[in-house]
Amino acid sequence: MILVMKENTSHNQADALIEKLAWMNLQGILTEENGRYLIAIVSGISSDTDLKQFLAIPFIDKILPLTQKYKLAGREIKKERSVINIHGKCIGGGTLMVMAGPCTIESEEQIHKTASLVAASGATVLRGGAFKPRTSPYDFQGLGEIGLKYMQAAAKNHQLLSVSEVMDTKDIDLVAEYVDILQIGARNMQNFSLLKQIGKAGKPILLKRGLSATYLDFLMAAEYILQTGNPNVILCERGIRTFETHARNTLDIAAVPILHELSHLPVIIDPSHGTGIRSIVPPMAYAALAAGADGIMVEVHPEPDEAISDAKQTISPKMFAEMMEVLRAIGQVVNIQVE
Amino acid sequence: MILVMKENTSHNQADALIEKLAWMNLQGILTEENGRYLIAIVSGISSDTDLKQFLAIPFIDKILPLTQKYKLAGREIKKERSVINIHGKCIGGGTLMVMAGPCTIESEEQIHKTASLVAASGATVLRGGAFKPRTSPYDFQGLGEIGLKYMQAAAKNHQLLSVSEVMDTKDIDLVAEYVDILQIGARNMQNFSLLKQIGKAGKPILLKRGLSATYLDFLMAAEYILQTGNPNVILCERGIRTFETHARNTLDIAAVPILHELSHLPVIIDPSHGTGIRSIVPPMAYAALAAGADGIMVEVHPEPDEAISDAKQTISPKMFAEMMEVLRAIGQVVNIQVE
Amino acid sequence: MILVMKENTSHNQADALIEKLAWMNLQGILTEENGRYLIAIVSGISSDTDLKQFLAIPFIDKILPLTQKYKLAGREIKKERSVINIHGKCIGGGTLMVMAGPCTIESEEQIHKTASLVAASGATVLRGGAFKPRTSPYDFQGLGEIGLKYMQAAAKNHQLLSVSEVMDTKDIDLVAEYVDILQIGARNMQNFSLLKQIGKAGKPILLKRGLSATYLDFLMAAEYILQTGNPNVILCERGIRTFETHARNTLDIAAVPILHELSHLPVIIDPSHGTGIRSIVPPMAYAALAAGADGIMVEVHPEPDEAISDAKQTISPKMFAEMMEVLRAIGQVVNIQVE
Amino acid sequence: MILVMKENTSHNQADALIEKLAWMNLQGILTEENGRYLIAIVSGISSDTDLKQFLAIPFIDKILPLTQKYKLAGREIKKERSVINIHGKCIGGGTLMVMAGPCTIESEEQIHKTASLVAASGATVLRGGAFKPRTSPYDFQGLGEIGLKYMQAAAKNHQLLSVSEVMDTKDIDLVAEYVDILQIGARNMQNFSLLKQIGKAGKPILLKRGLSATYLDFLMAAEYILQTGNPNVILCERGIRTFETHARNTLDIAAVPILHELSHLPVIIDPSHGTGIRSIVPPMAYAALAAGADGIMVEVHPEPDEAISDAKQTISPKMFAEMMEVLRAIGQVVNIQVE
Repeated sequence: MILVMKENTSHNQADALIEKLAWMNLQGILTEENGRYLIAIVSGISSDTDLKQFLAIPFIDKILPLTQKYKLAGREIKKERSVINIHGKCIGGGTLMVMAGPCTIESEEQIHKTASLVAASGATVLRGGAFKPRTSPYDFQGLGEIGLKYMQAAAKNHQLLSVSEVMDTKDIDLVAEYVDILQIGARNMQNFSLLKQIGKAGKPILLKRGLSATYLDFLMAAEYILQTGNPNVILCERGIRTFETHARNTLDIAAVPILHELSHLPVIIDPSHGTGIRSIVPPMAYAALAAGADGIMVEVHPEPDEAISDAKQTISPKMFAEMMEVLRAIGQVVNIQVE
Repeated sequence: MILVMKENTSHNQADALIEKLAWMNLQGILTEENGRYLIAIVSGISSDTDLKQFLAIPFIDKILPLTQKYKLAGREIKKERSVINIHGKCIGGGTLMVMAGPCTIESEEQIHKTASLVAASGATVLRGGAFKPRTSPYDFQGLGEIGLKYMQAAAKNHQLLSVSEVMDTKDIDLVAEYVDILQIGARNMQNFSLLKQIGKAGKPILLKRGLSATYLDFLMAAEYILQTGNPNVILCERGIRTFETHARNTLDIAAVPILHELSHLPVIIDPSHGTGIRSIVPPMAYAALAAGADGIMVEVHPEPDEAISDAKQTISPKMFAEMMEVLRAIGQVVNIQVE
Repeated sequence: MILVMKENTSHNQADALIEKLAWMNLQGILTEENGRYLIAIVSGISSDTDLKQFLAIPFIDKILPLTQKYKLAGREIKKERSVINIHGKCIGGGTLMVMAGPCTIESEEQIHKTASLVAASGATVLRGGAFKPRTSPYDFQGLGEIGLKYMQAAAKNHQLLSVSEVMDTKDIDLVAEYVDILQIGARNMQNFSLLKQIGKAGKPILLKRGLSATYLDFLMAAEYILQTGNPNVILCERGIRTFETHARNTLDIAAVPILHELSHLPVIIDPSHGTGIRSIVPPMAYAALAAGADGIMVEVHPEPDEAISDAKQTISPKMFAEMMEVLRAIGQVVNIQVE
Repeated sequence: MILVMKENTSHNQADALIEKLAWMNLQGILTEENGRYLIAIVSGISSDTDLKQFLAIPFIDKILPLTQKYKLAGREIKKERSVINIHGKCIGGGTLMVMAGPCTIESEEQIHKTASLVAASGATVLRGGAFKPRTSPYDFQGLGEIGLKYMQAAAKNHQLLSVSEVMDTKDIDLVAEYVDILQIGARNMQNFSLLKQIGKAGKPILLKRGLSATYLDFLMAAEYILQTGNPNVILCERGIRTFETHARNTLDIAAVPILHELSHLPVIIDPSHGTGIRSIVPPMAYAALAAGADGIMVEVHPEPDEAISDAKQTISPKMFAEMMEVLRAIGQVVNIQVE
């Protein structure tokens, strides 16, 4: 159920109402659309609840149904697309946010060099892993905090935003200290403890789709974050697991227009993990943009073949620069601006 | 093993050699690249075979390995992309061949009207089913020959090529009488009897990928056709079956660049079956072209909601016309011409 | 809709009624349960059809709904399990029908030897392929008719029934001349032309589940056969294609109890194709029987390692004999008799 | 690489050697087989490492290769099956460990009643969730600590062991205080932070297979735990996600014999989550045992239809009791004892 508030209702009045709802064992979440406050009642409604009582509340203009399971992530609560503003850079508002960088932060020099090169070609966000989810316990697990320090400095030097993965509730604050966007990896998409906590760090969350997550699962995972009051969730399709093993995953490009129909959240594509094949990364980035993606996330390394992890899917700065050129031209066709 | 013939070897000399190979229980298939004849020895080679004997043959310049399982479909035998010329229209040579029309041929009027509308917007090929593979025996199974007659006339009227599905070896000649391209549907991709026969009709074959066919399976199915001496096979990705059921299938756009790496055959995308959702068809067509597809196959019906089959994924002539406009613009970016 | 006829209605009266229904554009199929005739109206009913008119017909006792899409394969039309009697041997009636033999009929000696060995251990049906669906056109395609002759003689010698695959409508009569059960392979499960024709040969049909066929697809394929008036369809689960590639397929043992709930048709398991791993074949056969399977189909070869095809999943006559011993003991627990 | 120590080497001597290896940057893990100590060198070996130096060490008898990626979970390091003794009850040694109880601990009464009923029918372990991984944030998330208290008391009353899920590193100690076996759920199978920590609690770990985890992924997840020095990992197959959605998951019974071939760890089956269909739970439990499973985990509730979660797949105490009877009989056939 959505309580649409009257036009000149104040934030304080809305908050007071949410408190009142809490006494009634109803959880209300405040959202805003076209200058109006809306309260989504996300739990506590039963078939016994007398809906008329709400219309009697002075601030309430009307009541709308809220039938989607992903109450806050769905289009019922928000017709227009969300635009997330991260220190002045927007995702979701007709621009393509390009996130680029190495799979793993390997050294101060490596991350600085990468930052310099991707910034020069038009990236907005520097990506890089400091805590790495590796299939084998015997593989390199990441530099940890020192890696984040390197990345923070590198991003700052080149006026880039930064994104890095959090793998554990105990590391949220640490990672949040150094980066602008917190990432939840595919393998943790249904790590509900992490989902419940991470939103509270007050940073935008980049949520990667699980290897076998349906759109419903994916949006419910986003809902866990949204429900904590953090509206800034970026959905990232990064390939699903299918019977075809030639490519690392099957990149579900159709997830872009489909998730745009189901949800107001921005949707980006990771063609690096989505394919695992270097030569296929650029055409899939083009496909993503042509399908309307709000961003792409690409693994770039100064010396791709020497990357500690994901070497096969990592592109060179030169490939990245050329790819950006094509993306700019496609962006003009589909009305999405590429920096 | 590939026998590369000397530059001025004649077709007759090559044929004679193939006959000679047959006496040795070796199957040789003649192909041509850059003006030179090559003979692919596709079966009969064992570890005992003395390779030196071939070098002693006067017409043979050198011997190259042929290690891909799909000997004729692979890149080893043919480095450049195949271009298939169908009555003056080319597929595979830097143009996007657009195939459009109804799922099912329903009436003379319907197919004529559709032909007129899609031709006006730039389609090259009229598609339409006369023999329909339906999941249920109680669903409409197609008009059969009369449908093909309607389609032939409609295509001719509007200078369109035509394509229609063959479901049974006994129908090959019948369908070949009326259409320019013979289609093998996804559910028959490994109907090996059909594969063995259909190529002999002397028409280009549009081979749809099976719902759970790997790239290897797909190319081996193409190999069945190529091995009969018909080099004109068009590969069509139309969505694979995965755990996600919101869309009818998961459209594997990456199949375009991947199959282009593995094979010289043209690759087209069917976003209608690939998604099953009308609104998603155009963005996926854009994605296909951005990824380098050689063609698209789209279901169009004058009154989409009244289509006998596949109504939910069928677009209107107006949507088709608008989509073609965007495709033209994307085509300019990726150097693929759209008529 | 099911027309339940009065108890003493004769076959002729039922047939006459079906003819009458045909004039009304309704397709009726005659079935029998507990000594009563039922007519399933499988197509032609619309929302306009006046149901009361049927009750006015003298022979009709009552009308029951028929809502399952697989009208003849489902439980609505037939509450009890079907028992198919093949020359005195039953499948579906509380016994385990064991089908065993080589993947491919290789020689007269091979099939005779196998027949002798599997008969000695308790097999009821001899399996063997004469027309082989091979992924590669360069692999051995089967002995054809001569193979069928060998198998017919071998089966006869050892009082075994026989089963072999049909791949093309044009081969139906040929294969039917030599074997007792006609098999449709997984790759042809939705070869609708074949499905429409094969039932008319008057032999029981063993229908293998397609690699990515849902239960609904599977039962609809069976429906194609049933609708031609042949009630003798055996469903065979032989593994589905999933992301896991260690085994050749993922054998869906749960298909046994699930298909038993949805349908009255017998369900058998093929652990050879279902796993592709010799050592795993016996435990999966045990699992199949424990789950209630009506039969198993196993690849056995006198010299498994020298089998022309499927060597890795083929068991030896000794393994087969030992497996049969365990099956007999499990059969006693789950009340399914093993010969 | 495996260092096999001489027969009379002491534990202290082995420990000292591991310390020495650490100085050489080699990680050695001590295991034991047939009364002999073995040291698995799980990381640090490179192509430069001089293997002969190890043979010079007095305690070392011989060196064996260790090529499996899952070094500690694989059969190379341990030929015989692991038996895990939990307070006198064994899993992996020829008995079927039956774990039963509600999906969610709902109340003191509910868990006591369930414990009483499942103990009476032969269960060894009481299962029940206190921290619940729910797809939706609006679903009941579990009773938390108070639930664990209820379960601890109920288990104790009926001489049952207990198992419950841990979802977050911060909860490990809390859950370990109350239960005998710590469970990692399917959605956390690759929550590497949790895997790294949980083994240190000193309790056996029940690791559920992820929805799209390959056997390799699954065993590598187990390896994370084993590598921390905790050898007591129980693998649980609970269904994988495939294209078939009639059942909640596709239960991969073949995982039992396959994992037994690849690994020495015990393998159990969860037919409740594996099917999601109450009536299918018993036959799949039978199949699991027939295939050689070391245990089963089943959801049982005194009033299944009123269960807060997973009602559709939960069986009644009566169904459970009947199922146990059949399991006992099958166990006798396959030489696995059922209590």
